[in-house]
Amino acid sequence: MSSAAIEFSRQNQSRFLDELKALLRIPSVSTLPEHKTDVRRAAEVLAAELTRIGMENVRLIETGEGNSGHPLVYADHLHAPGKPTALLYGHYDVQPPDPLGEWLSPPFEPTERNGNLYARGAVDDKGQMYMHVKALESLLTTSGALPLNVRVILEGEEEVGGEGIAAYVASQPADLKADFALVSDTEMFAPGLPTLCVGLRGMIYTEIEARGAKTDLHSGMYGGAAPNSFIALSQIIAKLKDESGRILIPGIYDSIIPPSSEELAAWKSLPFDEEHYRETEVGSRQLVGEPGYSVLERTWARPTLDVHGMPGGFIGAGAKTVIPAQATAKVSIRLVPGMTPTATFAAYRDFILHLAPPGVDVDVRLIHSGEPCLIPVDNPYIQAATEALHEVWSKETVFIRSGGSIPIVGDFARHLNLPSVMMGFGLPDDNLHAPNEKFLIANFYQGIESIIRFLEIVGEKAPS
Amino acid sequence: MSSAAIEFSRQNQSRFLDELKALLRIPSVSTLPEHKTDVRRAAEVLAAELTRIGMENVRLIETGEGNSGHPLVYADHLHAPGKPTALLYGHYDVQPPDPLGEWLSPPFEPTERNGNLYARGAVDDKGQMYMHVKALESLLTTSGALPLNVRVILEGEEEVGGEGIAAYVASQPADLKADFALVSDTEMFAPGLPTLCVGLRGMIYTEIEARGAKTDLHSGMYGGAAPNSFIALSQIIAKLKDESGRILIPGIYDSIIPPSSEELAAWKSLPFDEEHYRETEVGSRQLVGEPGYSVLERTWARPTLDVHGMPGGFIGAGAKTVIPAQATAKVSIRLVPGMTPTATFAAYRDFILHLAPPGVDVDVRLIHSGEPCLIPVDNPYIQAATEALHEVWSKETVFIRSGGSIPIVGDFARHLNLPSVMMGFGLPDDNLHAPNEKFLIANFYQGIESIIRFLEIVGEKAPS
Repeated sequence: MSSAAIEFSRQNQSRFLDELKALLRIPSVSTLPEHKTDVRRAAEVLAAELTRIGMENVRLIETGEGNSGHPLVYADHLHAPGKPTALLYGHYDVQPPDPLGEWLSPPFEPTERNGNLYARGAVDDKGQMYMHVKALESLLTTSGALPLNVRVILEGEEEVGGEGIAAYVASQPADLKADFALVSDTEMFAPGLPTLCVGLRGMIYTEIEARGAKTDLHSGMYGGAAPNSFIALSQIIAKLKDESGRILIPGIYDSIIPPSSEELAAWKSLPFDEEHYRETEVGSRQLVGEPGYSVLERTWARPTLDVHGMPGGFIGAGAKTVIPAQATAKVSIRLVPGMTPTATFAAYRDFILHLAPPGVDVDVRLIHSGEPCLIPVDNPYIQAATEALHEVWSKETVFIRSGGSIPIVGDFARHLNLPSVMMGFGLPDDNLHAPNEKFLIANFYQGIESIIRFLEIVGEKAPS
Repeated sequence: MSSAAIEFSRQNQSRFLDELKALLRIPSVSTLPEHKTDVRRAAEVLAAELTRIGMENVRLIETGEGNSGHPLVYADHLHAPGKPTALLYGHYDVQPPDPLGEWLSPPFEPTERNGNLYARGAVDDKGQMYMHVKALESLLTTSGALPLNVRVILEGEEEVGGEGIAAYVASQPADLKADFALVSDTEMFAPGLPTLCVGLRGMIYTEIEARGAKTDLHSGMYGGAAPNSFIALSQIIAKLKDESGRILIPGIYDSIIPPSSEELAAWKSLPFDEEHYRETEVGSRQLVGEPGYSVLERTWARPTLDVHGMPGGFIGAGAKTVIPAQATAKVSIRLVPGMTPTATFAAYRDFILHLAPPGVDVDVRLIHSGEPCLIPVDNPYIQAATEALHEVWSKETVFIRSGGSIPIVGDFARHLNLPSVMMGFGLPDDNLHAPNEKFLIANFYQGIESIIRFLEIVGEKAPS
């Protein structure tokens, strides 16, 4: 065990944390046009830091038509001939912070409370992505070299669908040639329990738009004659799932590849208390979802459908008696292995157009999509990761799936033929995409150590 | 026919129109707190004008708890002993202008096009209310007196429920003692067709709030386990009406007093072309509503339910994969004679609480309400109005109802024992509560003449 890099990381913990805080102060919200320059600023800060620690060929790669997207940050260090090449991936963009009123401290002013760092992006994914940078710094500073070859690719569009990196990976696969990818954008199953994520759900994110009258109308004058776009949309949404939570889109469950009986048995042995989960994480009166499946099966291995918001009409305080001409619902479906975005969207769209009530025109738009994926656990990089985690955490690694989507993992597999090691250090109560997002500071530090050891072990095991 | 006042009004048409434009430039949007000072400014402008034309005892009357509401404007001229007293009512507040993007000219910059004046409030109700003021000016300037006694009461909260005036009418009925009310806040059935409105729908305006999880959650992590507040709300809304448009709230139709067979026969003889109405006014693919009733019956004499907007969740551009903890629907029900706000809200609330799906908590709030009303047509003021309209428009008056709500008309009947004469000059395509609200300028002028003649005829017919 190369204690030099680990020692360096321990001695520099408070500086590493200060640097992370500076990065978190940049409101790099990729979905909001008003934050476009903030997103670029975060990219520039990261490029400067990668240069400072000794990475090479550091550059921003523009994305989108006419460079309209947020840039990728690239760096490499390819001086370990005969050793494998790691592709270190992370994202520096964040979700919008709303609803702002529910944050206990401002989302872009990182605040420490009870050993946690609270900020938008603390864990998803700036904090986790920055562990990679600090692991590389620790190795480069103490050895003047890296134990293997490394490419770094950071994106600024993960929270808006990652089109830029997807196009880049598909069109320039040689630029990212590597033997495996390391992705830290997932969580540990429980505090102190080292975890590798080996399955992700995919997603289609859509908008359903219903248009009734040609213009907004007075509900007194026209109520009883004019179609109401929100009622039409509600009628459609109410028919997408039955009362029990089963999705009613024809064929949606037909092509699913179910988990193996070994995987299901392993999930049953995980420390999961449904009542504790309901009370502390979800906080609802009861849990919902498809009957006949456990919570872990429902969230990891079954498709689900959610509505995120319904823009249109009057949403101010007080009363406006309008029949809104137009209403939109933002709806997503999570996909599991065996499902494809294309087939799922086609079935979903057909079903909705079939459901459209009289008097309204309905459009269904695909905003973005990602494939589900499943990583084989018998590859040497997963083995090395298991070993590194055992050294740092003194516990056996558990293999889980995530209900979330990291579309790039599927792209790495498809275009670069890379297995991904999803080694994440978030915790289940970290409030991803929600107010009061946080990252356990101890996990930030131990995550850096885990990554240092993982890269060292991969280098050691390879023939030199 | 006292041509002096009519002549004066004709000679001053362009000044009257300029004054109206100045009033329309004040964005007196009563529902938006940021326009509170604009609402007061409109009241002050009107008080100054009433003083200038010779009205007496002009004053602002504060409303609301701790004077938190928008003021009433009062004026009187009580120098016709033995003659009846008219209470002239109008409102100077307006609806919000959104969606702003659909206006062809700015909502608060009155613009003439094709003989119409376009502005928020042009017809509802600044333009119509101002006809009263200009009729009084024409009479006072030419005679130095009025043919009857007049009180003027103008409110600034009509579009937010009119609580201030309701409380004032209920608590200070002596201050508004009169023999009849004149209300110009309705429309003509067709261009050039003099119309008196003798029935109004009432309303309950409500909010339904659904709460699922304790905070917004990531739809990847929790999709399949956490209740979705928007899906719950959609399921509730979808059950409030059946597919045909019939409201499903138990008992909602039970107490309705149907129109008489004479009234129904008169409605059938009105010049109404359903296909023209669908195409030019509503602009939807087809009309909707309760089966078995004509469009006029559905909009005038049947209760209807509309959704105005569904605040909560993510409504920005792009994608945010959140399961919203909270979602609200703004829903109103229009009431017809025989129904009461209290009983309707109770039945509606009970039904919704009964419909609430598992996992969510549901609240139902009453934002405001108004009673439906029906005016007997055999009173002398309706007769005088019919005569005045015949003189000015050279056509027989038609009696219609309105699907809209003017709660104050019910309050005048209940607390002051006054019949209201609802003599309005709007047109069916005036875009009330919608973008591109307008008022036909010729109707503004002929409306002033109609009101002058109406007040003169009431004065002439009374014993002196």
